[in-house]
Amino acid sequence: MSDNKKVVVYVRLKDGVLDPQGVTIHKALIQMGYTDFVSVRSGRFFELEIEGSGGDIDRKVDEVCSKLLANPVIEKYVVEKA
Amino acid sequence: MSDNKKVVVYVRLKDGVLDPQGVTIHKALIQMGYTDFVSVRSGRFFELEIEGSGGDIDRKVDEVCSKLLANPVIEKYVVEKA
Repeated sequence: MSDNKKVVVYVRLKDGVLDPQGVTIHKALIQMGYTDFVSVRSGRFFELEIEGSGGDIDRKVDEVCSKLLANPVIEKYVVEKA
Repeated sequence: MSDNKKVVVYVRLKDGVLDPQGVTIHKALIQMGYTDFVSVRSGRFFELEIEGSGGDIDRKVDEVCSKLLANPVIEKYVVEKA
């Protein structure tokens, strides 16, 4: 049993930011006859496995999110411990 | 208060399927000095808003997942009611 930590980072667009991928999927759904669908918003997630322990893991994950995984200008992220 | 249903569909690659995006992010993390990170797997999620009710919503969501949102050959999906 390893003592590796697992965290999941969910990245989504901020409210009000246009989501072209979601809009495109929504249009496709309507064309396919699925007219019950009102809206689609898309997002990404990343499952990170981190070695060892230490209190600075939370800080590192936060740094990694804002530097690499998300674009803080238009995206927000949530870190969830798996 | 609308009675629209919200579901979130999480799409991830099946185990054993190479995740080039995850590998690339992992390499970038190492280069940036974050050597504690052991692995990165990427995935997508979709927040769907569905009008009305009815028992066939679950079936429709399932159809939409396998037809449009995920590629069942290499991906698996989980539907979660929000």
